[in-house]
Amino acid sequence: MAASETTEAEYDVVVLGAGPPGENLADRVHAGGLSAVIVESELVGGECSYWACMPSKALLRPVTARSEARRVAGLKDAVTGPLDAPAVLAHRDDFASHWKDDGQVRWLESVGVDLVRGVGRLDGPRRVVVDGGRVLTARHAVAVCTGSRAVIPGIPGLAEAKPWTSREATSAQAVPGRLVVVGGGVVGVEMATAWRALGASVTLLVRGEGLLPRMEPFAGLLVAESLAEAGVLLRTGTEVREVRREAPGGPVTVILDSGEEIVADEILIATGRAPRTDDLGLETIGLEPGSWLDVDDSCRVRSVAGDWLYGVGDVNHRALLTHQGKYQARIAGAAITARARQVPVLESDRWGAHAATADTEAVPQVVFSDPEAASVGRTAAEAERAGHRIRVIDHDLGAVAGSALYADGYRGRARMVVDLDREVLLGATFVGLGVGELLHSATVAVAGEVPIERLWHAVPSYPTISEVWLRLLEAYRG
Amino acid sequence: MAASETTEAEYDVVVLGAGPPGENLADRVHAGGLSAVIVESELVGGECSYWACMPSKALLRPVTARSEARRVAGLKDAVTGPLDAPAVLAHRDDFASHWKDDGQVRWLESVGVDLVRGVGRLDGPRRVVVDGGRVLTARHAVAVCTGSRAVIPGIPGLAEAKPWTSREATSAQAVPGRLVVVGGGVVGVEMATAWRALGASVTLLVRGEGLLPRMEPFAGLLVAESLAEAGVLLRTGTEVREVRREAPGGPVTVILDSGEEIVADEILIATGRAPRTDDLGLETIGLEPGSWLDVDDSCRVRSVAGDWLYGVGDVNHRALLTHQGKYQARIAGAAITARARQVPVLESDRWGAHAATADTEAVPQVVFSDPEAASVGRTAAEAERAGHRIRVIDHDLGAVAGSALYADGYRGRARMVVDLDREVLLGATFVGLGVGELLHSATVAVAGEVPIERLWHAVPSYPTISEVWLRLLEAYRG
Repeated sequence: MAASETTEAEYDVVVLGAGPPGENLADRVHAGGLSAVIVESELVGGECSYWACMPSKALLRPVTARSEARRVAGLKDAVTGPLDAPAVLAHRDDFASHWKDDGQVRWLESVGVDLVRGVGRLDGPRRVVVDGGRVLTARHAVAVCTGSRAVIPGIPGLAEAKPWTSREATSAQAVPGRLVVVGGGVVGVEMATAWRALGASVTLLVRGEGLLPRMEPFAGLLVAESLAEAGVLLRTGTEVREVRREAPGGPVTVILDSGEEIVADEILIATGRAPRTDDLGLETIGLEPGSWLDVDDSCRVRSVAGDWLYGVGDVNHRALLTHQGKYQARIAGAAITARARQVPVLESDRWGAHAATADTEAVPQVVFSDPEAASVGRTAAEAERAGHRIRVIDHDLGAVAGSALYADGYRGRARMVVDLDREVLLGATFVGLGVGELLHSATVAVAGEVPIERLWHAVPSYPTISEVWLRLLEAYRG
Repeated sequence: MAASETTEAEYDVVVLGAGPPGENLADRVHAGGLSAVIVESELVGGECSYWACMPSKALLRPVTARSEARRVAGLKDAVTGPLDAPAVLAHRDDFASHWKDDGQVRWLESVGVDLVRGVGRLDGPRRVVVDGGRVLTARHAVAVCTGSRAVIPGIPGLAEAKPWTSREATSAQAVPGRLVVVGGGVVGVEMATAWRALGASVTLLVRGEGLLPRMEPFAGLLVAESLAEAGVLLRTGTEVREVRREAPGGPVTVILDSGEEIVADEILIATGRAPRTDDLGLETIGLEPGSWLDVDDSCRVRSVAGDWLYGVGDVNHRALLTHQGKYQARIAGAAITARARQVPVLESDRWGAHAATADTEAVPQVVFSDPEAASVGRTAAEAERAGHRIRVIDHDLGAVAGSALYADGYRGRARMVVDLDREVLLGATFVGLGVGELLHSATVAVAGEVPIERLWHAVPSYPTISEVWLRLLEAYRG
């Protein structure tokens, strides 16, 4: 049902932001018997549905499917040509629901959650004002699920040049002739991969030494090698000093710290994210506008008294991934429901129903590059920094029979990081074609804390890529 | 090193059969400090390397890769034509090592295991005679790893018609114009899939009601639907009454129990397997030639005194799959080594180092059909027969965002079977494109006995097909 037209309304839970975390949290608390309303100023469905996961994967799936087909006997000669870019873009439009949120609104209605369109701002404890008018009061909780936005660095001329962010890069209606991508993280790598495959000349500028710096180093190396083969010009150790676009729609000149100039049609900035908390009225409850929200394992904001404020999804900076935001929403939704019923909440009970323990121990991520890079849990370096006594086991993924059968000249690598004290996995990384679905086996092993001894009984089916598990275990046994 | 030329030799362990189970067992006991010899009458590497897993998957990978490419925007129009059959067959030849075992022999040498070529037969306890001459004596164990062969039913005219078995179906050098496949299990389904895609007219004759009868019923239904769309003529509830081939190389006439006649160029018999134990000298130690070997969880033959005889791989009839044979080889190799050192062997210690517990609890299998069908552990029917109190959760795999992104019009289904008393998974089944690598997540969950409550913390990366896990858990919580 639609929200009533009164200027004041009271709900058990008021949710700011209708991305996947907000939607899932509202659904959970409603399923737990609480009333819930979501306030959204843009499209219901959020960044993921229109300007991130969905459109980006719709752009990338043809790239990996073609890459695989090109390595399969009897098929490879048919797929030597370029992708049909207009077809890919049209298909992407479908997966972004043509930037209309009717379907998501219907879903909200179907689960019994009210929707208020507008900008919601806190106005003291448990009180939200929408567009300066309507007042929503929360009996039990306000959940901030407003996500993040791309940061545009203060480089001279950059803002005026109207750069692409992840939003424009996932929703552009035509392939730019020349694209400069700034940033070697997931967004930069994925968008360089997609637009290069769609026909753009792509230059990828990275400040550091390599790509995908949050993964094991070999991930960035293998992806960089493949991008170079696809014709992407990769420049590491490079910063942008200035950007100039003389005329709207005209070419953009990117001036590097070396003084070198690159002329392109578009520039994509993918250097970081900032929380969308700057215009939320945080100052009315003693928090700093524009700051990430510091939450405990139930996603309750630590510094706010009364257990009524939650931060779920990107805003809490625990793990900026849609699936982790949804996970947090399930946990926080359960915690809010429990607290409303005065049931004890054990947010310090690791792996319990009210603790988002996976945010620190078992975050999975698949980069839909060519080849894919997939990881879960801690890298070797992270595990060491955390003080674990570890052993690192690597294996050449191309040496697995299932991989060789999957694609000619398969290149890839797998790593597992073993906690020597408990003999469980702390993390795993796979890079190669077709590893996107293989990752979840490692996620179950890490989150499940399945002992190495038991993993020997988890037999991989022959001949799949998954048989790398056997090789990793054999190498560990040594 | 090569076996010495003496006519008598003593080893700690004598292995009959150099397929993957024999190779792995010999490797394991040698790594444990025991001497080992393998006796092989055909090619080192066994059925899997030359007439099963490797060539069959080399024939099938192009089929699934093309099927996927045909469902991807921007690529689909390039792959409307047929597969290049000669290219696929040539590639298959490479993966069957051109039916030469030099590489496998080098591997045996590299791990320090001797090889004796010839037919090995038992001649009383711990004694093997090769080709009626050379005698090999086993100080500790003889391991029978001779595998299985296709059964040719006693249908009038069938043997004389020289039917294909799995061997000919995986090694044929040309595409038959018309192929009749008898049997709806894995071999029948995979070979009907492959040869149809390579251009043959295929009729698939099944005695029962459906395909893949050992999996959940929906697996066979989905695969049957897809085979029909590919143009395979499926006839269920049908038996072959007689077969006639008038001239060698000429057409074969298949007469059904209905009296109907089907004329084809080749007939593939894929109706079952028999143990290769008929010519092993089993009678010299009181066992029945041609019988499956009845073994305990360490793969020791129960009825033979003295703990010296093992049956590993297909011969023990526990699970006729290469990966399970290799798994048993690791377990049996550890048990043989332990017994040789007079270390206690705890074959009744479930999930321990000397018990092949996964053979009963967590056997994985991927059928490389189009779409793939993958399962692990118990089906719902099996779990009920075993007396478990279960709940069955199904989900439409095509309704997962990651599946829709993976392939247009994705069709598939997932099922998990939950043990309500322990709240762990007893089994899982996935049918759909790209599920072959997804299976291992379920294998880890089943073999690891990871509680449902903990599986909530194993977050699937968005948007992958693996997100079906979340949907299954939500439905279970339901």
